[in-house]
Amino acid sequence: MRIVVLNVNTTAEMTAVIGRSAELAAAAGTEIIAIEPVWGPESVESYYDSFISAAAMLQRLLQLTDPFDALIWAGFGERGHEAAQELFDAPVIDITHAAAATACLIGRRYGIVTTLPRSIALIEDNLTTAGLLGRCAAIRATGVGPLDLDRDPEQTAQRFLLEARRCIDAGADVICLGCAGMAGIERRITEELGAPVVDGVAAAVKLAEACVTLGLRTSKIGPLAPPLDKPRRGWPIAAITSG
Amino acid sequence: MRIVVLNVNTTAEMTAVIGRSAELAAAAGTEIIAIEPVWGPESVESYYDSFISAAAMLQRLLQLTDPFDALIWAGFGERGHEAAQELFDAPVIDITHAAAATACLIGRRYGIVTTLPRSIALIEDNLTTAGLLGRCAAIRATGVGPLDLDRDPEQTAQRFLLEARRCIDAGADVICLGCAGMAGIERRITEELGAPVVDGVAAAVKLAEACVTLGLRTSKIGPLAPPLDKPRRGWPIAAITSG
Amino acid sequence: MRIVVLNVNTTAEMTAVIGRSAELAAAAGTEIIAIEPVWGPESVESYYDSFISAAAMLQRLLQLTDPFDALIWAGFGERGHEAAQELFDAPVIDITHAAAATACLIGRRYGIVTTLPRSIALIEDNLTTAGLLGRCAAIRATGVGPLDLDRDPEQTAQRFLLEARRCIDAGADVICLGCAGMAGIERRITEELGAPVVDGVAAAVKLAEACVTLGLRTSKIGPLAPPLDKPRRGWPIAAITSG
Amino acid sequence: MRIVVLNVNTTAEMTAVIGRSAELAAAAGTEIIAIEPVWGPESVESYYDSFISAAAMLQRLLQLTDPFDALIWAGFGERGHEAAQELFDAPVIDITHAAAATACLIGRRYGIVTTLPRSIALIEDNLTTAGLLGRCAAIRATGVGPLDLDRDPEQTAQRFLLEARRCIDAGADVICLGCAGMAGIERRITEELGAPVVDGVAAAVKLAEACVTLGLRTSKIGPLAPPLDKPRRGWPIAAITSG
Amino acid sequence: MRIVVLNVNTTAEMTAVIGRSAELAAAAGTEIIAIEPVWGPESVESYYDSFISAAAMLQRLLQLTDPFDALIWAGFGERGHEAAQELFDAPVIDITHAAAATACLIGRRYGIVTTLPRSIALIEDNLTTAGLLGRCAAIRATGVGPLDLDRDPEQTAQRFLLEARRCIDAGADVICLGCAGMAGIERRITEELGAPVVDGVAAAVKLAEACVTLGLRTSKIGPLAPPLDKPRRGWPIAAITSG
Amino acid sequence: MRIVVLNVNTTAEMTAVIGRSAELAAAAGTEIIAIEPVWGPESVESYYDSFISAAAMLQRLLQLTDPFDALIWAGFGERGHEAAQELFDAPVIDITHAAAATACLIGRRYGIVTTLPRSIALIEDNLTTAGLLGRCAAIRATGVGPLDLDRDPEQTAQRFLLEARRCIDAGADVICLGCAGMAGIERRITEELGAPVVDGVAAAVKLAEACVTLGLRTSKIGPLAPPLDKPRRGWPIAAITSG
Repeated sequence: MRIVVLNVNTTAEMTAVIGRSAELAAAAGTEIIAIEPVWGPESVESYYDSFISAAAMLQRLLQLTDPFDALIWAGFGERGHEAAQELFDAPVIDITHAAAATACLIGRRYGIVTTLPRSIALIEDNLTTAGLLGRCAAIRATGVGPLDLDRDPEQTAQRFLLEARRCIDAGADVICLGCAGMAGIERRITEELGAPVVDGVAAAVKLAEACVTLGLRTSKIGPLAPPLDKPRRGWPIAAITSG
Repeated sequence: MRIVVLNVNTTAEMTAVIGRSAELAAAAGTEIIAIEPVWGPESVESYYDSFISAAAMLQRLLQLTDPFDALIWAGFGERGHEAAQELFDAPVIDITHAAAATACLIGRRYGIVTTLPRSIALIEDNLTTAGLLGRCAAIRATGVGPLDLDRDPEQTAQRFLLEARRCIDAGADVICLGCAGMAGIERRITEELGAPVVDGVAAAVKLAEACVTLGLRTSKIGPLAPPLDKPRRGWPIAAITSG
Repeated sequence: MRIVVLNVNTTAEMTAVIGRSAELAAAAGTEIIAIEPVWGPESVESYYDSFISAAAMLQRLLQLTDPFDALIWAGFGERGHEAAQELFDAPVIDITHAAAATACLIGRRYGIVTTLPRSIALIEDNLTTAGLLGRCAAIRATGVGPLDLDRDPEQTAQRFLLEARRCIDAGADVICLGCAGMAGIERRITEELGAPVVDGVAAAVKLAEACVTLGLRTSKIGPLAPPLDKPRRGWPIAAITSG
Repeated sequence: MRIVVLNVNTTAEMTAVIGRSAELAAAAGTEIIAIEPVWGPESVESYYDSFISAAAMLQRLLQLTDPFDALIWAGFGERGHEAAQELFDAPVIDITHAAAATACLIGRRYGIVTTLPRSIALIEDNLTTAGLLGRCAAIRATGVGPLDLDRDPEQTAQRFLLEARRCIDAGADVICLGCAGMAGIERRITEELGAPVVDGVAAAVKLAEACVTLGLRTSKIGPLAPPLDKPRRGWPIAAITSG
Repeated sequence: MRIVVLNVNTTAEMTAVIGRSAELAAAAGTEIIAIEPVWGPESVESYYDSFISAAAMLQRLLQLTDPFDALIWAGFGERGHEAAQELFDAPVIDITHAAAATACLIGRRYGIVTTLPRSIALIEDNLTTAGLLGRCAAIRATGVGPLDLDRDPEQTAQRFLLEARRCIDAGADVICLGCAGMAGIERRITEELGAPVVDGVAAAVKLAEACVTLGLRTSKIGPLAPPLDKPRRGWPIAAITSG
Repeated sequence: MRIVVLNVNTTAEMTAVIGRSAELAAAAGTEIIAIEPVWGPESVESYYDSFISAAAMLQRLLQLTDPFDALIWAGFGERGHEAAQELFDAPVIDITHAAAATACLIGRRYGIVTTLPRSIALIEDNLTTAGLLGRCAAIRATGVGPLDLDRDPEQTAQRFLLEARRCIDAGADVICLGCAGMAGIERRITEELGAPVVDGVAAAVKLAEACVTLGLRTSKIGPLAPPLDKPRRGWPIAAITSG
């Protein structure tokens, strides 16, 4: 089984981190292909970046030549997975949904710890349209941007622990990580706070494998049918020659 | 990995059917142990039966001597999985939740086709407390009871197809089977109506495997903590000598 | 008029307390028959206990030989009243619903003060499926278990007053007692905090009398119709010989 | 116990009908005082009439000289009961809430059959702010105005039966009468359709008696506290000399 | 274009303040006619006052002899605008709705700062029936009554700033003023807290102009059709001779 | 005042139609600048097209050199307006929100008539995140694509009338046009069905003018603050040389 993991941003180091998370979660026969868009922001924490990335991610998908069995939309709280669902029969798993749905299996309410406060709105919108916000106890931000997570690892970890604890105080008994790239934080939250921690990328890999094994593909009888064939001027974007 | 699949009713034939569904969905290294309660109704389509079964299922779990990695609560729209979550660290997956959560991954809205009209209320209640009703387009009943599915297989199939179509007319693009034991109906719904079909037992097996592989266990820091140790007069039920 | 008050647990002292509350509330011609299940937990503060009790309560109802006019399901936030509704034409009143519905008549938002924090989830689920959570401002727990209420009465009272005040700070102007057996606490909350206090058992008695006087019986044209006649192996439980 | 039943309109014949309904429901020691406003519309089926009536009803309450124990706000889906709650410590029961809350005790979902289609919006608004709409399956109108119910009694009854049946088709298992003055219709709906029928006035009498017996009075620690003492020019309306 | 701005209370000074706000917001060709009811309370902060005012406002409208193009219902969180919608084809804009709808155009969530705590319930009810509460982050009260705003202007301003800040802490990025008559407070909130501030009267003028320019008039095919022609005893109120 | 109207698709004829609608609605001193993206689909009726367009629209905005006072996001039910809100202080009005908010001012419930059935999902998502779906009675599609509206104008008009009538049957008393380019249909719906009709572009112009006149600008203290300054590889798209 081949699962494409599509990073939301253009930072290859982040793609590598996400890819490793995916590989750790993957079953023996699962091949992970971690990629990122050719153009777009190096990190995403705004509607502006999220919408640019959505188009860049869609373009990246058009360039895939080898078949794949499932696709993971690897941006927490980001836009655009429905468009990828339209493009392919293969299941498309948004990591936000994967995290929330999995968290609901092992607890009563979940909390999310993300990076910057402004990302909270994007995550809320994502979960609202997905119908998955009902069991969310809190979404909280550490204030540490996605590319700064490694700057002072211990301080970052302390921030995560603090906000995870606040989620628990608000009624969560499971924590979802609202970002990638924080190696080891899951273990610490579980050890220090007792709460299970769900990583969206890992969860998405398992849900993707589940759909593929069960022979489930994206429904084409409703709004996720293939886009109409029509002129789209200048699309896909022709040549991105320099970074 | 050992997954216990606990049938909601005492009909061993149904346990066997569910067990086969689970085995078909299971990964190579997964062992399925399909069991049913020792006492309780032979089929469940009322609150009364559902509450009797819930206690009988809990008692059956107390008799398990070998360890297991996950538990599947195999009654569609039934009561009691939270109690099993309290009893064990191992993940407990309600097949209703598994079906709904999986359906949401591959479509926009799901419909459920169940057996008797009175089961609709139980399913609604189950999904309401789980926070998963938001993307449910319709729950419809064929009028064929769970133990009568095989009486006239073609007529039963026609009834399922009719109600699945009505779910689609109501906005569903994915169908969940709200019962077990209808061999072949999934394929026919997909072939004749174009909609993917989710079987709750199969989906639950994959979600259970996912949790186990990811090392996720039921949270014990909130309301799913182990029950208090205390006198429970006459519990577990001592001797059920005859049927 | 004969009203059966069915205690959720097997502690006869608690049954007596509940019975007295019911009798104090009852009209002149109302006879209160307070009973408890033969088997099951001595107190209920978990899903596990709640589901065991539900079955035990149902069994206890099957043993009733004399007719009755209404039934009170006397466990705050517990499971199973719908099953009793299926069994009888006589109205079945869940004390949780009675408390919430009555509180809404005399205030804008109600708060609930219960015993242990883990009970909050059960109460929330109960009120969510009943459609009565919308005007609930807060559910708070004292941390004093149902069988420990009398251990240090003044401290218990202080805990209740503290959490009632927190409910008021959260917007409640009426308090519901989320447990039985706290003699005198209602008066103190009203005197010290000014809020009316609703006891679920007392409220349920009045609502039961209301239904009976109005000739209203549980509807049998929908999901609360009598359970199907069918084999239920080992049910009702044969002989509980020792406690 | 003295219960004032305040008719929403100025039609004395309707007051008499409502008064008789209330007396039939009242307990032995309950005195019913049925009154109507001195000014205002002869029937109410619009926001305009409802708001005029609300003020006229409030004025009528100011003229009460004898004490009373509870007040019934007898307009189905009408405005203003919160203002009466502010004026008095005695419980104030809106018949819309009484009907809906009582219906929820004996069924899973209720339907409402009212007079004119435009009243549906008022009823919806009333139940929405009361937090009681969640278990309403349908609100339907017969098209027969409140003062025309007696014009062709059999045709009126047929219209009620038709719309009650449509409520049942929409999922209701209990019917609430959304108007007064239809003698005998309750019995016919129950006999022909099998559904219990709740009359709001009768239900309100029992809920009022319940509150009084339990010593529950309107909470004064929140938004239902007495109105501030202040100049209100020309209020209450001085002299309504002719009709 | 002629826009009538109908103050909710009988205080002419407040009418003048509201009129000036409206004139400042009005387009060049818009004539503002600011009026108040002839009878009713001098300020409104309770259901009681709100329902008296609603009838008095309706009566005042019946006395209008000159045609007008739109009507502004100038009481924040008050009752009765639907009745005025029934009476006229001209658009009727409730200032509560105008403030909330406008705030949603320029921010993600809005907060409301009003006068007395008891007004919060009225505002919530108003926005709930209007379907506009979803993006409200908080409603907070300064504790300064509507007629006391000028008593100590700096202290009043500090109270407003404090509560506006608390709204922002609760997630609001726009502030709505839940009262009239606080000259200059908008500018201070924006300068000191950075949040845009919406005044309901000003917003209502622009929305009224918008509807008129677009040729949009209140729909008469649904529940806002003209009230039925019928006897309304003593209405409109005949002679209010003294204040 | 300068208002930029940004068409969601690259079809210049559609831009011209939208521009004329905007000009007809605009006040005397308002200049309308109607533009379209340089790249992207010629029409939008899928998530795929909507997300491509969102990025193309954002890029088009970066190319604007002259200042403007407000921006209209002219795609019904489309994605991306929040990103534009982040980019500018000037108000950004999504025509979906403008239509819904305006419809709520003149009726109780609104219906939407759009082009293709698959657009319904996009419109629902748009209104759900905007918190404006509560008063939507129905969203219905004519089956006539946005570029085929002029193919058989009378048949198109009949389809619109049919679906508008179905919205009214579902409880709407106001109709919103869920597309642009259907000259004359508004007048026919109003004449034949009696319902006011709201055009989102026209409504957006008035709401934009309202915000500008009131000095209201997009809030920058919350999630709509300017995007962070950071590398965005290949963005904006360099050279789109041919269509």
